[in-house]
Amino acid sequence: MKIKVGIMGVYGYMGGEALRVLLRHPQVELAWLTSRAPGPVSLHHPNLHGCDLHTVSEDAIGDCDVALLALPTATALSAAARLLDRGIRVIDLSAAFRLRDRAVWERLYAMPHSHWSLARQAIYGVNELHAPLIAAADLVANPGCFASAAILAFAPLLSRRLVDPERLLVTGISGTAGAGAELSPLLHHPAMANNVAAYNVVDHRHSYEIEQELSQLHDAPVSVHFTPAYAPFVRGILAICSAFPHEPLTREQLLELYAAYYTGQPFVKIVDAPAETAVAWQHRPYPQVSAVAGTNYCHIGLDIDQRRQRIVVFSVLDSLGKGGAQVAVENLNLMFGLARDSGLQYYAAQPC
Amino acid sequence: MKIKVGIMGVYGYMGGEALRVLLRHPQVELAWLTSRAPGPVSLHHPNLHGCDLHTVSEDAIGDCDVALLALPTATALSAAARLLDRGIRVIDLSAAFRLRDRAVWERLYAMPHSHWSLARQAIYGVNELHAPLIAAADLVANPGCFASAAILAFAPLLSRRLVDPERLLVTGISGTAGAGAELSPLLHHPAMANNVAAYNVVDHRHSYEIEQELSQLHDAPVSVHFTPAYAPFVRGILAICSAFPHEPLTREQLLELYAAYYTGQPFVKIVDAPAETAVAWQHRPYPQVSAVAGTNYCHIGLDIDQRRQRIVVFSVLDSLGKGGAQVAVENLNLMFGLARDSGLQYYAAQPC
Amino acid sequence: MKIKVGIMGVYGYMGGEALRVLLRHPQVELAWLTSRAPGPVSLHHPNLHGCDLHTVSEDAIGDCDVALLALPTATALSAAARLLDRGIRVIDLSAAFRLRDRAVWERLYAMPHSHWSLARQAIYGVNELHAPLIAAADLVANPGCFASAAILAFAPLLSRRLVDPERLLVTGISGTAGAGAELSPLLHHPAMANNVAAYNVVDHRHSYEIEQELSQLHDAPVSVHFTPAYAPFVRGILAICSAFPHEPLTREQLLELYAAYYTGQPFVKIVDAPAETAVAWQHRPYPQVSAVAGTNYCHIGLDIDQRRQRIVVFSVLDSLGKGGAQVAVENLNLMFGLARDSGLQYYAAQPC
Amino acid sequence: MKIKVGIMGVYGYMGGEALRVLLRHPQVELAWLTSRAPGPVSLHHPNLHGCDLHTVSEDAIGDCDVALLALPTATALSAAARLLDRGIRVIDLSAAFRLRDRAVWERLYAMPHSHWSLARQAIYGVNELHAPLIAAADLVANPGCFASAAILAFAPLLSRRLVDPERLLVTGISGTAGAGAELSPLLHHPAMANNVAAYNVVDHRHSYEIEQELSQLHDAPVSVHFTPAYAPFVRGILAICSAFPHEPLTREQLLELYAAYYTGQPFVKIVDAPAETAVAWQHRPYPQVSAVAGTNYCHIGLDIDQRRQRIVVFSVLDSLGKGGAQVAVENLNLMFGLARDSGLQYYAAQPC
Repeated sequence: MKIKVGIMGVYGYMGGEALRVLLRHPQVELAWLTSRAPGPVSLHHPNLHGCDLHTVSEDAIGDCDVALLALPTATALSAAARLLDRGIRVIDLSAAFRLRDRAVWERLYAMPHSHWSLARQAIYGVNELHAPLIAAADLVANPGCFASAAILAFAPLLSRRLVDPERLLVTGISGTAGAGAELSPLLHHPAMANNVAAYNVVDHRHSYEIEQELSQLHDAPVSVHFTPAYAPFVRGILAICSAFPHEPLTREQLLELYAAYYTGQPFVKIVDAPAETAVAWQHRPYPQVSAVAGTNYCHIGLDIDQRRQRIVVFSVLDSLGKGGAQVAVENLNLMFGLARDSGLQYYAAQPC
Repeated sequence: MKIKVGIMGVYGYMGGEALRVLLRHPQVELAWLTSRAPGPVSLHHPNLHGCDLHTVSEDAIGDCDVALLALPTATALSAAARLLDRGIRVIDLSAAFRLRDRAVWERLYAMPHSHWSLARQAIYGVNELHAPLIAAADLVANPGCFASAAILAFAPLLSRRLVDPERLLVTGISGTAGAGAELSPLLHHPAMANNVAAYNVVDHRHSYEIEQELSQLHDAPVSVHFTPAYAPFVRGILAICSAFPHEPLTREQLLELYAAYYTGQPFVKIVDAPAETAVAWQHRPYPQVSAVAGTNYCHIGLDIDQRRQRIVVFSVLDSLGKGGAQVAVENLNLMFGLARDSGLQYYAAQPC
Repeated sequence: MKIKVGIMGVYGYMGGEALRVLLRHPQVELAWLTSRAPGPVSLHHPNLHGCDLHTVSEDAIGDCDVALLALPTATALSAAARLLDRGIRVIDLSAAFRLRDRAVWERLYAMPHSHWSLARQAIYGVNELHAPLIAAADLVANPGCFASAAILAFAPLLSRRLVDPERLLVTGISGTAGAGAELSPLLHHPAMANNVAAYNVVDHRHSYEIEQELSQLHDAPVSVHFTPAYAPFVRGILAICSAFPHEPLTREQLLELYAAYYTGQPFVKIVDAPAETAVAWQHRPYPQVSAVAGTNYCHIGLDIDQRRQRIVVFSVLDSLGKGGAQVAVENLNLMFGLARDSGLQYYAAQPC
Repeated sequence: MKIKVGIMGVYGYMGGEALRVLLRHPQVELAWLTSRAPGPVSLHHPNLHGCDLHTVSEDAIGDCDVALLALPTATALSAAARLLDRGIRVIDLSAAFRLRDRAVWERLYAMPHSHWSLARQAIYGVNELHAPLIAAADLVANPGCFASAAILAFAPLLSRRLVDPERLLVTGISGTAGAGAELSPLLHHPAMANNVAAYNVVDHRHSYEIEQELSQLHDAPVSVHFTPAYAPFVRGILAICSAFPHEPLTREQLLELYAAYYTGQPFVKIVDAPAETAVAWQHRPYPQVSAVAGTNYCHIGLDIDQRRQRIVVFSVLDSLGKGGAQVAVENLNLMFGLARDSGLQYYAAQPC
């Protein structure tokens, strides 16, 4: 018997991606879809020509086992509450339930949090860290894309307390899909196509998600210094993560640590190109965003500067994939006892 | 029982795409893969990290039911012959067996054709035109990407003899994946990223494939005037096809004609946006290459200039998808009595 | 003594480009600049940091010798009239005064033309055709970008009556700067970056400008079949122009014809790469948009299909340069007896 | 009387840019140009159609006042020596003479340094720091592009000893022009167009240039942790520079410091957008690479995270402009007593 899934907000990039992926999930049946202006889904998603589904407004939605919410944060707060009241489990892709410090949340999102009891019961959806809790959760707070990338990059170091917790630096380079479908001068093609645009360069909201998770692993407060920038491509993000080790380490020690930490995780791959292969056509020694575009994979690579004792970890994932709609499906699989990779077993197109 | 498939030449873009798609084909088992420098496939395809397959050299290949050849034309000629001799059916993705006029082929490809008897028995693989022949074929000549796009765009007009057969014009705009993995000054990123590059602007080899197929539909010779250009994106092609009708026609008549012609074809979609929806975010009235990237779909749209009586037909497909490796899989499905869309049922990521 | 120049509408792409070019014109003094929201120009043009100019509203503008109007067509109609009344010569970059058939203009622009007597006295600003008239004009109608490209591409053929005047086909490929600074779903970076978007695919307004000028050269009506598309780059356009000769011609005859026709024209260059050089790094046999980006040059190349007797002419220019603001400066030079290339003597950056 | 200038190596991107800029320098006369395969310059630079200059081989070069060397480092070593012997002043754009520690140089460039006495007399060409020395120099070592960007970004902080000198972090995002004209799998358009490629991620050669200059300003050793990446655009680089202040600072204090430090410098602009203007179309609060593409400008912006006390400085410049060929011209102006901005007074095209 298939899991009945509803999606709220399929006209945005995140909801559209959830729809595209669930359409071919072998154990899922789409119960309903909502959007601001109900109609045929192919009207807003020209890639879905031939797909006969229609969206409805929220008051017309029926029953289902679980709902994915691809809504603005302010809207998601109450929508999640209504669905949970009806006994529907919820995977929320907004920022509504990601933080455990109410004062911080209310400052960052500039509004009172109307459902703090839900935030307290929500499980943060990095499944490499919290799989058992996610499996049992009624409400999963799907993580921010840069938060996922940075947490996966730093987790092995912090869980072993190997680095200075006050000097964790992340530069994030994001494709423009990460900014969403809303028009803005920042994303007008002529202005963006040969440009790089840093934004929210200090005190970014995702910093707090990263600090929250890494502090728990480190068992003490940490400081994450995060600066993101949009670059002129569409899908995927690269997090360049720097840390300073307490003791000298080698590249080999680090690779072993990471390989061990992620053993058994189906979607995190440690990429380490033997030096002699680095000249092969199309081959590069570090993770590439194009290699994970459209998928649920996260590729991680790393290096260490022996002279200056700095570790640099590279983490790539698709903000709509492992950083968004597809990791939501991975969480759904966990919540319903399905194989972790059900509906997610495919590789990126190359080139793309 | 699964179909055993071999692929020759998986390190190029075309072979890599065939591999990626067949990896998740439910009724296919990969028997062997070849490449110039045998080794793990992920070495050349960073998207396939986690896939444990290796390539072998041709002399190590075993048995299989069918082989896909993603080789240079000169190499494919003899490789196809060797495989057919062993009783292996062949889908050839090169230009080795596409033309029925030997003198033309030998002039265009600047070599003698060493296996003309095979060329005579090969079936040209536009399956919307030749499905029954493909089903029974031992050797399928997979069509060129622009040939597929233009043939699908013009076929309804020519089969009804509605337009001047001497004035069929095609401008092709191709992403750079169409040029292959070989390095060239034309495709160096700094030189190409803000450029448009016309190439082979008259007497292009694909013109002859198009003329061959359309002449058969028209039952008389036709002239195709084709000019391609690379534009700075990666996946997909747009064919802008102009024709001059003998009698005045309306847009509605044309849309009806096209809808009727392609009824029942799973991968050709006639895209017609109601005028009132053309302002929706992300919506456009004509087919878009990004909507078919990475898939086996061909989207077709059209219009007619009532004042000057010119028909323009837009045809988009992915040169590695419906224009290459994926249509080869569709042909494979036909050859083995599988559902036409087996292993090909997915939509393009959006945005991408 | 310097020419005093005013610019109306410097916050758009076209007005901004006029400003940038005139800032370094040795014989021009900027008298005033207008914009919808008056303020420092660097506020809207981050490239102009360090330039201390401010814009004013129209009612604050003073005297000058000539004004460049970079305004919407409807606004330009009356602004031109007001300036001409004050004795100021006008170069209008909108479509307000480009056509000589009032009924056609009013249909295409969907409004009554409030100043038709001005339209009748305006000179169409392709200076390779109309230099003496432009020199004496009070009102110059700067041509559309694709109109310029196609007129320059076809003029030698039409003026010699060498081709079928009913079968002139143009495919235009434009960078997104041609669409202007106004936000639109069509130009949202994630939607456009890997896409090609055909628009106004039949009966485009520029068709009529091209037909008007070519009919005059041909001394009989002509039909231009024009289809434009945006491709994912920013600056420049490529017009691919096809025509069918009455008599067989050779490539060499055509190159001679074009070289002779454009002798003495400082900004039209016939590009003909010797075959043996076509393999040089970065070198290509046909004109490239990147080679003229940011400049007032138009590069033209051509070929002929001997088998099918089709001529193809490639014409590249920058829609804000030779197709817009810079050709307006070239016209200004003509109007004031300056050297034709004054302030315009520079080449494109490469790569760019 | 004009300065006679020779350029060695005009077929690469750097030499081509030097040529393009010097062609319109009012006080410069081009004495000779060299390239590996002598011929007309437009053969390799399609942007220069209409320019009648030819290159010669090195043995055919005549006299001149100064030579710009756009050669590989190994070749530049001896070429500089030969020219200096002839009494020709030299501006070297390679890395041959940039470092003052011979052992470090020989390790980084993997060769013995054949002319160390020249390296000792060379002046490092960041003219905001060393103008008087450059004016008197016979040999100027033009700085690396990321070195220029990072030095200009950090100089005000280090010269005042305001930050922890051991924790200076730089992420560099470069357009692909920075990688040069040499073909490579890394820069094949299909592989790069939707990708981000980190390279030389630890112990990059430019780190040592930055440390050398900042140590001098700080009057004590510093550590620079530098990681560069190519992103899919062509011109320009963005350096994201992080530092940790000893004492709490405000954004306003920092802006004042930077404004004062760069007072009187014609090509360094401190970009600070008032918050209320940040919503204007096309406007962004931080420096943008497209605003300096093709020019000699460096735009600097900054911010500080009050909670975590991290300073972030953004520095943008064009690696072929202020980071390469154009700063070489600025240095040339200094060496010959010309106005610092002679031949360099123009702004970037927008959009581009």
